[in-house]
Amino acid sequence: METKSENRCFGGLQGVYSHPSKSTGTEMTFGLFLPEEANDGPVPVLWFLSGLTCTHENAMTKAGAQAFASEYGIALCFPDTSPRGDDVADDEAYDLGKGAGFYVNATEKPWAPHFRMWDYVAEELPELLGKSFPIDLDRQAITGHSMGGHGALTLAMGLPGRFRSVSAFAPICSPTQSDWGTKQLGAYLGPDKSTWAAHDATLLMQDRGLDAPLLIDTGTDDQFGDLLKTEALASAIATRRQPATLRMQKGYDHSYFFVSTFIPDHLDFHAEALFA
Amino acid sequence: METKSENRCFGGLQGVYSHPSKSTGTEMTFGLFLPEEANDGPVPVLWFLSGLTCTHENAMTKAGAQAFASEYGIALCFPDTSPRGDDVADDEAYDLGKGAGFYVNATEKPWAPHFRMWDYVAEELPELLGKSFPIDLDRQAITGHSMGGHGALTLAMGLPGRFRSVSAFAPICSPTQSDWGTKQLGAYLGPDKSTWAAHDATLLMQDRGLDAPLLIDTGTDDQFGDLLKTEALASAIATRRQPATLRMQKGYDHSYFFVSTFIPDHLDFHAEALFA
Repeated sequence: METKSENRCFGGLQGVYSHPSKSTGTEMTFGLFLPEEANDGPVPVLWFLSGLTCTHENAMTKAGAQAFASEYGIALCFPDTSPRGDDVADDEAYDLGKGAGFYVNATEKPWAPHFRMWDYVAEELPELLGKSFPIDLDRQAITGHSMGGHGALTLAMGLPGRFRSVSAFAPICSPTQSDWGTKQLGAYLGPDKSTWAAHDATLLMQDRGLDAPLLIDTGTDDQFGDLLKTEALASAIATRRQPATLRMQKGYDHSYFFVSTFIPDHLDFHAEALFA
Repeated sequence: METKSENRCFGGLQGVYSHPSKSTGTEMTFGLFLPEEANDGPVPVLWFLSGLTCTHENAMTKAGAQAFASEYGIALCFPDTSPRGDDVADDEAYDLGKGAGFYVNATEKPWAPHFRMWDYVAEELPELLGKSFPIDLDRQAITGHSMGGHGALTLAMGLPGRFRSVSAFAPICSPTQSDWGTKQLGAYLGPDKSTWAAHDATLLMQDRGLDAPLLIDTGTDDQFGDLLKTEALASAIATRRQPATLRMQKGYDHSYFFVSTFIPDHLDFHAEALFA
């Protein structure tokens, strides 16, 4: 593992590290904020999965999460959103290929060799964190933005018992019925839609639900609102009687200005579960 | 107007009053909590509309709202849920007739003469409060439980500009598609369903939305959950991108133990709008 940078931040340390990944067969980079409390022993961790076009860096620099994570003594991990490198397949569109891994294991050409972001985020990176840093893997929580919200929701429902709390900012809620989803799931997983269901938060909510508290914020002025299919997940949550809070936030859009506004609430929410 | 009782309560006064009503043609009884601040001038008011089988008394004695209304200096008004008296039509069922007015103006026999709860709550009682008590009618908010949640939502969407904030506990969300609704709207309004739409929160949300902040709490273990149709309103809110917070509260049922648990949050929510 290589240290790309380390900066003192809110009494703790904001690091950026890279490592050769078994899952993707590429060098992968991630951001990790360790609060001051990590000097005394393992701390809980909140994963932040990012959206389309993002790297590990966007949320790390723009979400403002460290200020509140440091108050509670929570680590923050910011994975990348896809494999990178010259030999990694890509597409001219911003929403397919690099920066658009959709947190799945691709089975189709040309994506299958490297686009295994589910395995990377679900298995490899947590294992690496537990071995290399003072992180308490018994206390994990997850959040994400847009495509990363999709990732947070699908990972949480796909890995029961893993996360003590789950939240999302403007998540893609039903990729099987959105242009943010059908194109990508078709490309990565192929035309057999039965393989898509494990990556659709609404279908997962209908089928199995979530074993952790859930908080979702989405802006009423989200410029991508039609692509998110929030109404499908809202209906599924109410029908299942899933414990959850869904907030339609007046006037907010899809940007990090929206995310940073509600990050304090999300850290409060996750802290309550992580320190219960 | 007759004073039935007045009790000192959280530094203010919990009164119960009755008066002959033009709307219903009967004597009507209501509860009114005035906080201590009412001694110095008009105070804002939060309406609490009650559910099936309730009188003015249930929420007044069991919701625990006075503790928090007194902290903010907010009056609370608890209307009855139907006309009462020997010459008022009734039905053997608990959910039709007395205690089940559904906040509509009945047009059908035998209900039409007295069951005019919309007019009573929307027009007559506010006017009476404004004339007889130090209530600031420019600062009104509304909440309700079950059938009263239905009333709060439909009154608020039917009277744009009236309420600065709107909340509900386990509201009936779509009476036109529930056994808590089709029977009553059919009885009171007749078979022409076009007249029902003004009394269906989901249809109103689809058609016009709400011009005020909205908070809804419903328990995941609500024993009447199937009758509430929360999923229909949740979908309509998200589709419309209506500013709102919908919370599915883990393990709570339909009782006043549920209502009293979240009354503090609702008073906080309404106070923010009433004192903005």
